[in-house]
Amino acid sequence: MKRRNLSQQDLLAAAKTYVPTGKRDEFVVFSSGGQSGQVIVYGIPSMRILKYIGVFTPEPWQGYGYDESSKAILKQGMIDGKDITWGDTHHPAISETQGKYDGQFLFINDKANPRLAVIDLRDFETKQIVVNPIFKSEHGGAFVTPNTDYVIEAAQYAAPLENRKFYPLESFNEAYRGGVTYWKFDRKEGRIQPEQSFSFELPPYSQDLSDAGKGPSDGWAFTNSFCSERYVGGIEKGVPPYEAGCSAKDTDYLHVMNWKKAAELVAAGKAKKINGHNVIPIDVAVKEGILFLVPEAKSPHGVDVTPDGKFMIVAGKLDTHVSVFSFEKIQAAIKAGKFEGKDPYGIPVIGMRDALERQVSLGLGPLHTQFDSKPCIAYTSLYVDSQVAKWNYCDGKVLDKVSVHYNIGHLMTMEGDSMDPQGRYLVALNKLAIDRFVPVGPLHPQNHQLIDISNDKMQLLYDMPFPLGEPHYAVAISANKLKPFIRYQVGTDSRTDKRHPGAVRAGEEKTERKGNRVEVFGTAIRSHFTPETIEAEVGDEVVINITNLERAEDETHGFTVSTYNTHASIEPGKTVTVKFKADKEGVYPFYCTEFCSALHLEMQGYLLVKPKGWKAPAKAAETKGTAYTEADYKNQLKKIADTQAVIDQVVGYITSVNYQDFPDVVAMVEDAQDQLGKIPDAKAKHEAAAQKKDWNQATLWAEQVWQYQVKTADLGLRAKTYLEQNGAKKVK
Amino acid sequence: MKRRNLSQQDLLAAAKTYVPTGKRDEFVVFSSGGQSGQVIVYGIPSMRILKYIGVFTPEPWQGYGYDESSKAILKQGMIDGKDITWGDTHHPAISETQGKYDGQFLFINDKANPRLAVIDLRDFETKQIVVNPIFKSEHGGAFVTPNTDYVIEAAQYAAPLENRKFYPLESFNEAYRGGVTYWKFDRKEGRIQPEQSFSFELPPYSQDLSDAGKGPSDGWAFTNSFCSERYVGGIEKGVPPYEAGCSAKDTDYLHVMNWKKAAELVAAGKAKKINGHNVIPIDVAVKEGILFLVPEAKSPHGVDVTPDGKFMIVAGKLDTHVSVFSFEKIQAAIKAGKFEGKDPYGIPVIGMRDALERQVSLGLGPLHTQFDSKPCIAYTSLYVDSQVAKWNYCDGKVLDKVSVHYNIGHLMTMEGDSMDPQGRYLVALNKLAIDRFVPVGPLHPQNHQLIDISNDKMQLLYDMPFPLGEPHYAVAISANKLKPFIRYQVGTDSRTDKRHPGAVRAGEEKTERKGNRVEVFGTAIRSHFTPETIEAEVGDEVVINITNLERAEDETHGFTVSTYNTHASIEPGKTVTVKFKADKEGVYPFYCTEFCSALHLEMQGYLLVKPKGWKAPAKAAETKGTAYTEADYKNQLKKIADTQAVIDQVVGYITSVNYQDFPDVVAMVEDAQDQLGKIPDAKAKHEAAAQKKDWNQATLWAEQVWQYQVKTADLGLRAKTYLEQNGAKKVK
Repeated sequence: MKRRNLSQQDLLAAAKTYVPTGKRDEFVVFSSGGQSGQVIVYGIPSMRILKYIGVFTPEPWQGYGYDESSKAILKQGMIDGKDITWGDTHHPAISETQGKYDGQFLFINDKANPRLAVIDLRDFETKQIVVNPIFKSEHGGAFVTPNTDYVIEAAQYAAPLENRKFYPLESFNEAYRGGVTYWKFDRKEGRIQPEQSFSFELPPYSQDLSDAGKGPSDGWAFTNSFCSERYVGGIEKGVPPYEAGCSAKDTDYLHVMNWKKAAELVAAGKAKKINGHNVIPIDVAVKEGILFLVPEAKSPHGVDVTPDGKFMIVAGKLDTHVSVFSFEKIQAAIKAGKFEGKDPYGIPVIGMRDALERQVSLGLGPLHTQFDSKPCIAYTSLYVDSQVAKWNYCDGKVLDKVSVHYNIGHLMTMEGDSMDPQGRYLVALNKLAIDRFVPVGPLHPQNHQLIDISNDKMQLLYDMPFPLGEPHYAVAISANKLKPFIRYQVGTDSRTDKRHPGAVRAGEEKTERKGNRVEVFGTAIRSHFTPETIEAEVGDEVVINITNLERAEDETHGFTVSTYNTHASIEPGKTVTVKFKADKEGVYPFYCTEFCSALHLEMQGYLLVKPKGWKAPAKAAETKGTAYTEADYKNQLKKIADTQAVIDQVVGYITSVNYQDFPDVVAMVEDAQDQLGKIPDAKAKHEAAAQKKDWNQATLWAEQVWQYQVKTADLGLRAKTYLEQNGAKKVK
Repeated sequence: MKRRNLSQQDLLAAAKTYVPTGKRDEFVVFSSGGQSGQVIVYGIPSMRILKYIGVFTPEPWQGYGYDESSKAILKQGMIDGKDITWGDTHHPAISETQGKYDGQFLFINDKANPRLAVIDLRDFETKQIVVNPIFKSEHGGAFVTPNTDYVIEAAQYAAPLENRKFYPLESFNEAYRGGVTYWKFDRKEGRIQPEQSFSFELPPYSQDLSDAGKGPSDGWAFTNSFCSERYVGGIEKGVPPYEAGCSAKDTDYLHVMNWKKAAELVAAGKAKKINGHNVIPIDVAVKEGILFLVPEAKSPHGVDVTPDGKFMIVAGKLDTHVSVFSFEKIQAAIKAGKFEGKDPYGIPVIGMRDALERQVSLGLGPLHTQFDSKPCIAYTSLYVDSQVAKWNYCDGKVLDKVSVHYNIGHLMTMEGDSMDPQGRYLVALNKLAIDRFVPVGPLHPQNHQLIDISNDKMQLLYDMPFPLGEPHYAVAISANKLKPFIRYQVGTDSRTDKRHPGAVRAGEEKTERKGNRVEVFGTAIRSHFTPETIEAEVGDEVVINITNLERAEDETHGFTVSTYNTHASIEPGKTVTVKFKADKEGVYPFYCTEFCSALHLEMQGYLLVKPKGWKAPAKAAETKGTAYTEADYKNQLKKIADTQAVIDQVVGYITSVNYQDFPDVVAMVEDAQDQLGKIPDAKAKHEAAAQKKDWNQATLWAEQVWQYQVKTADLGLRAKTYLEQNGAKKVK
């Protein structure tokens, strides 16, 4: 402590966040990755990043966008017939059942290119991308309704709803529109159903974030906005910029929508089609009584429904107050037809005072609110003050404040936007790190700070840099609610969840030629591919399917062919396809890109691209590699016997203790048995070759037996260490 | 401690790794990112990842591959005229001066597509990619000579050296070759000079890793190999796979090369040209006495020269020993002409016993060795045993072992491959994590484990998951050796380090049309772009240059245009260009993608793509946004006065303490003054408008004054918090 100059407070924070080897984090966070186009997964309280999930941007480690199935997912996100190779992700949402996180799916939006993606939390892979059919930007997604019937996504910057249609800025009020889309989600299929989805047409106020009602407010949803001034800027012409014109009025509008009734209207054919998509026009929504406005303090970011579903909390960044709106009061006003007027588009406006439960002064730049497990307790980020405020939304008391570093945007508590917040921790998603970390050039990491909220006073615990991307919002779920699997059923296409047509079992590998198409049905296992040689002619289309035959946890293989710009990550059981045109003559090594075993570097092969019509010379040259003798073979046999003694010793130890009480060890033992099971075939081969005095083949197949022994020993030693470190006990 | 079930040992580890807010890590690690194609930067002892640097794979957060200058870097890496959009990075190297890390440059290789990249550590950006002109894979790079005159890069899988030339596998021995390339590095330019670079032609043994001699061995370099059996596999034809054939012999070859003499030979014109590149043929190298072989235990990974330059340590993964080779003994054998024979390519082979100083038995699967600050102390990773061994290479004693989780590949000590290792910490780069972390699907993170090596016994401190990519090797440098800058000189193209031709200063912004090309020379500053409207016609080429006028640390802006698939990250002072064809009519919002300020969401504009020849109607529609009155203007003036009072109060506090002793605060105060300095211009405008009773313009320009006040207050409050938390003292 002294040597590292730590205070007592620091030591306490260290103890609260440190997760020793072999132990696990309590919560898992899904954070947007901003301009990286990805989703970031990290653990709490250790704040260690566990995974970047490829969503809108190709990512080669995962093979995402480099093998055929994942390319097809990215192709779903094409806009106007063109690839979009990145995204600006903002607000993730975990699927909910009865308003509580269920850990099944994750949704994330792309602001720059209005799209939404679906991630399956069984394998943490992106399964679908849908393009918003009417928006040109999309900041306010994703938010789910309490049973994940719909995923909510709001436009940001208004634009004409018809695609590829120009209207001048002078006709902004008439021709530009905002909106909110309700994407229908089919939980069984795990996919969004675009044809059953619909949108509200809304005025050209920049619609921002949303939240769905829950409990008493279920069936309704709330979306706030900024720049309801409908200002169109033009600093280059000498008029004030957007930042002035979009913040000049004291209030913007909270949009209050009845989505359940809207869905019924759409089913009844009352929507019109724009770009083939169901849109409820403003006048229809007004006439049907499903759309209202409430003034809110200007330029807010986030409307957050309290866990009990009774209140909606909104904070305007340029005001010092948070506003607590009452769902009951809003409904009373609607019922009574008590409006203060209409907006220029005919939407009834409920008086702010008629909708407010209370306002609480918190500080400068209040931005976003989340909830505690304790009733009535909320936390609000203060951007300008660089603080988090703890307060009570039932009595309006401010309870505590803590400084953060610096300029906090969103904040997040554990399951804190669900009906069942878990308390314990809060994360401040700060936009600037400035001096917090070792400098790494002009582009700084973001800084997420972990705060302990289990006591009356908040305690800052940990600074966490973000090495890639700018997180905007994040959601945290109890780790025990996630049940991802560790392997696929053999031969699965992970992007369709179906059997892959290119899958084969061990022994069924083959290469087929049809016209100019060479198709390989191959496999990968520690430590070789089958086949090891792929032959093609210049101009052929080469299709390589590979199934990972491994069953062991974490035994991923990778595959690439030199300079042909494809890459696959093949987790246990997965089948993938890489495809390319062999458009250049030559010799191109392929290899396993994931360090899978001691002989990983030797997990290689060659793609041979011959000139068209190439024929081998009548008397082919012969490879004269190392030649082996009977003595070499005998040496191999001795080595095999010695290694078997080591294996027997390890097996002796393992079976002498209660290894069956350790599921991880049981898995290793099964894998080891799997490796041993491969030996008889290789053994038969070396014995048969020896019979024929073919010492080359005999020596090499004997070597292969030894390789399986090495893999077995590797597993056995890993299991032994595990047992020793985890207190295995002798059994009789 | 009790609540979280931590042991005394855990608490000690927590205290040794925890870095409290505001304090910094002691060492910075540069790790390869494997199949992600990136470089990963993290801190020790906290093990927090600080940055992913885009190298071979486009990465949109950094704008890498999405703006024009960075696209040009990636274009340098094209192979056979085609884009390669990923890489498989393996071994980073920090530039050295007299054998010690100097913190100026970082080099990293791409195994899949044989390339090498140069990263400048002043701004952590990739500045150059060179394609290896003769290899088809490249695993064994990068390694530098002691003054970074050359960067060493070895082929892996042998192939014909001529590009796009097919030879059948039957002629493997005759037509396939390995090699080692020595890239000439120009430190002043910060770029590799391909025309001054050269390669050794080598036999088709899979050349692997290298290390340059130092001190007494300076001028020489060492490269090991595997599969010197020259086996070509073919499991699909019923013969044993590569893994058996490439590990059947007990030894492979360590290549010993005199690179200084080789460079002289090249200068003297003794190289031949292959694909336009200087290659020293095997027979020339043999004749000139600059190439020798020494048998080494089979399938090694890594040859590591001791800090004193006297010994080369090699470990064969399938042996239990590490071999300590003596440079002196090798030189003596060469001098004496004492060889045990020649390899099939005529290269003299020095007897293993004649070159060995000693062999030490460490355990199963020894793989890679690094050094301590204490003399003679080395650490070797044991892949199969999943352990790190500490041993003495001077007396051969094994001193300690510690178990890691699981299957360690490389390991790394602080500056541990330089002539001046720093001791303290060791990182085990484990290939499998299996059960270490909360499960995140079938694809697991890697696990780097931090180990305390300051005492006799090693202590495992921390498990660090890798969320993206598979690190292979890493290098760690003392944080105080890195001096990156925080801003660019205004108008810099960061990829060329020169003034950007599209840069303008504030007030010089303009839009030019030349034929079908619309070029914008714009700027970005909190919180607006200039211009805010960009007009084009369908089919125009649109070029948008933006200069970030900010001087404040961490005040990065981002830029994108909806659905046009470009993105720029614009750090303070940087100028970037995005370019695209406006090939679709419509209205496309653009916005700042980096949360830069309270009015960040309002930092927006529109690209208007009109039909060809579109003319505005004679009587244009007029935008009827909010209209303001004299009362609104007066309200603004009151708000400005109120806010000024807050600012005065904060300024009062700051100037009442010794703020000038805090450089971070001084920077904030300068930035605040910068913001205040923008007020007079906006003030003059609102007053002039008020004079003319133009209440709209008056109100909006007054709002703009207030926006500058908000930015000033933001900085002032940040500065105040900083001073309060860092013990600022009252001054008289």
